[in-house]
Amino acid sequence: MEPDPALPRLVVIGAGFGGLAAAQGLARQPVALTVIDRRNHHLFQPLLYQVATAGLSPADIATPIRSLFRHRRQVRVLMAEVTGIDVAGRVVRTSAGSVPYDTLVIATGAQDAYFGHSAWERFAPGLKTVEDAVAIRRRILLAFEHAEAEPDPERQRRLLTFVIVGGGPTGVELAGAIAELAKVALALDFRRIDPRSARVVLVEAGPRVLATFPDPLSEAAARGLHELGVEVRTGAAVSDCDADGVALGATRIEAATVLWAAGVTASPAARWLGVPADRAGRVVVGPELTVPEHPEVFVIGDTAHVAGPQGRPLPGVAPVAKQQGEYVARAIAARRAGRAPAAFRYRDLGNLATIGRGRAVADFGWIRLSGRFAWLLWGLVHVAFLIGFRNRIAVLLDWLWAYVTFRRGARLITAPHGPPEEAPDPPVAVQAEERRAG
Amino acid sequence: MEPDPALPRLVVIGAGFGGLAAAQGLARQPVALTVIDRRNHHLFQPLLYQVATAGLSPADIATPIRSLFRHRRQVRVLMAEVTGIDVAGRVVRTSAGSVPYDTLVIATGAQDAYFGHSAWERFAPGLKTVEDAVAIRRRILLAFEHAEAEPDPERQRRLLTFVIVGGGPTGVELAGAIAELAKVALALDFRRIDPRSARVVLVEAGPRVLATFPDPLSEAAARGLHELGVEVRTGAAVSDCDADGVALGATRIEAATVLWAAGVTASPAARWLGVPADRAGRVVVGPELTVPEHPEVFVIGDTAHVAGPQGRPLPGVAPVAKQQGEYVARAIAARRAGRAPAAFRYRDLGNLATIGRGRAVADFGWIRLSGRFAWLLWGLVHVAFLIGFRNRIAVLLDWLWAYVTFRRGARLITAPHGPPEEAPDPPVAVQAEERRAG
Repeated sequence: MEPDPALPRLVVIGAGFGGLAAAQGLARQPVALTVIDRRNHHLFQPLLYQVATAGLSPADIATPIRSLFRHRRQVRVLMAEVTGIDVAGRVVRTSAGSVPYDTLVIATGAQDAYFGHSAWERFAPGLKTVEDAVAIRRRILLAFEHAEAEPDPERQRRLLTFVIVGGGPTGVELAGAIAELAKVALALDFRRIDPRSARVVLVEAGPRVLATFPDPLSEAAARGLHELGVEVRTGAAVSDCDADGVALGATRIEAATVLWAAGVTASPAARWLGVPADRAGRVVVGPELTVPEHPEVFVIGDTAHVAGPQGRPLPGVAPVAKQQGEYVARAIAARRAGRAPAAFRYRDLGNLATIGRGRAVADFGWIRLSGRFAWLLWGLVHVAFLIGFRNRIAVLLDWLWAYVTFRRGARLITAPHGPPEEAPDPPVAVQAEERRAG
Repeated sequence: MEPDPALPRLVVIGAGFGGLAAAQGLARQPVALTVIDRRNHHLFQPLLYQVATAGLSPADIATPIRSLFRHRRQVRVLMAEVTGIDVAGRVVRTSAGSVPYDTLVIATGAQDAYFGHSAWERFAPGLKTVEDAVAIRRRILLAFEHAEAEPDPERQRRLLTFVIVGGGPTGVELAGAIAELAKVALALDFRRIDPRSARVVLVEAGPRVLATFPDPLSEAAARGLHELGVEVRTGAAVSDCDADGVALGATRIEAATVLWAAGVTASPAARWLGVPADRAGRVVVGPELTVPEHPEVFVIGDTAHVAGPQGRPLPGVAPVAKQQGEYVARAIAARRAGRAPAAFRYRDLGNLATIGRGRAVADFGWIRLSGRFAWLLWGLVHVAFLIGFRNRIAVLLDWLWAYVTFRRGARLITAPHGPPEEAPDPPVAVQAEERRAG
């Protein structure tokens, strides 16, 4: 069934927090809406680190985009890769053909930034997609497996050293979760090694972790990480990165696993549109989140540069993207009604970050919390914002089980390139070679 | 901690149903036990088809082998690939070094057999591992996505045609599950195509499906498949197979998705041991499941050829492997006690197979069932035999949710070779090319 030609053609690119909020708002309006995403699922990224650390299954935090609009016959979902945009001709070019629009909403998010060191990506993967999370989970769990099979103490130490680069919420959550995995969930499972001896290092270039939070909460987070046995190194910038570890200026850390949470760069929307971008690659939009000279093109979420209080751009977090998506839907409705939409204003409802079991920080401006209550709050908020009843129940179940048993529900090593019988796992093979050689 | 040198060294290769049963029995005995598996997890294969059809998450049917023995300090688990066995020297060679043994249990299972047409494997993947299941899930879900983006009706029809080769339990379960996915779970999710128009063909070379079941139950299964809209073609052997479909002698079926459930061949244990194998590559063992001239080497499960009633070898099913594993543990205990173990005898407790929602067949010899009650029985038995409390709850939850909502909990398309941004999905790209060309 093709959309009604009489209806205005709305196209939303990207079904993350921003795009989905916009699409859900627009789906209630009399428009022919097309949602384009390279994925078939919306991903709840705030919990992706728990997939990477074997706590949750990918499906628990992903929802098929189609099923969210199954009862909206005027909404079409297209799984395709956007290759370009013809702004003059008002057409989105995709791997599955061209899609014309009257109004366009771009919410294509961001990807990990390696600040000109793209070679590091191989050694220090980031955490943006389900594939990233499963690959990191594989890396972390294999490190322990290889350490158990490794007679050489030095190699063993390297295998049991984990470096997380970047002290923002993702880095802090990853570091805490890996420390808990090693010191609790895996504690009794090995014979030659003691997983509790694993070394987890969190590297932050700035003076403190969780820099977007007030000082006292940063300190609380650092304390919590110390208690979990995480080594926090602030004021330490990565100067080099290879398969065997990282260099922090003069000091070098030998580590088989290095994870990247040090920053992101926006998707290539600015290039598609041929408009100016800021240093992070974000499209600079006006008060109505539209592109200069193109009121029919909205850019929101991590892809947009929107001036916030004190002139600083709004942070690339879910609440900002969601509110912008909702705003766009309202603004488009207002325009159809012949009214001029008011400028976008971000309502900061507070920030949450978790460090580990019973440990989190919460900043609501008027009140600051840390510890168990902040942790419960963090859990409630995240389950509440998860899409879909099934996912909420599944996550709650996995959390309850992990809380009671101190174990992880998804300790699964799966091969990235087909099953091992086709591609035997290199690290193990290499080790065996070395052993025969030595 | 290395195992006590005073204890007899037991090695179990493979932690499937047979190997795990043997290992769990041996873990209760005063022996130094090493369990070797190329995977870190035990996989509940009977439900793997539900992962392949987006019903369950991989972690729901997988359990880390280590965690099953965490409290048995004399049990060591080694994740490694077996490369050979030195029977004279009593050493297992692995990708992680050599492992000496006093007694060896081989339970390395079977892999898909293409009967001399290994080229077909690319076009018609089988269902043995988590990777297989996730790749098949991707294939099935992408077929619908590509069909939705495909303007050419003929290509669309091919994309919406699914051929399952092999009418055994796995083939029947896959065919039924794909039909239900298309006709129920996805029914409302597309706009250009109607998933209910999808064509699902089950191809069986023999005269009937579920050939190991009595005639009336085979007929009941065939009827159930018909009611689900599955086209059952018995007496039809695949003569060719490529990316666009299969040939059954003169007739050809254009299908973008072909799945293989037509038979298996044993793991290379016979080659490792240098002993005779049957036509299916299984090691022919004696009444005590040991290799001729080598009473210290047991072979069980799908890897073993054990003469059953009427001289036919026992089928390669979970109950046979489990009973053999339990027997081996008992036999080894008897030997240590200086007693000669009695020969292995298989107690057939009956066969179950499911066709779809409310449809299954059960054969207990003294009674035969089909329909809703057999289906409930099937569900109960499978949950009961799942390893681990968490997995039982998770599977029950997903089943309940699917039963109530008629939806699938794990409709996730993930890239097999890293995220799409690195390797854009070929089929879509190809279509776009074709479209530009045409």
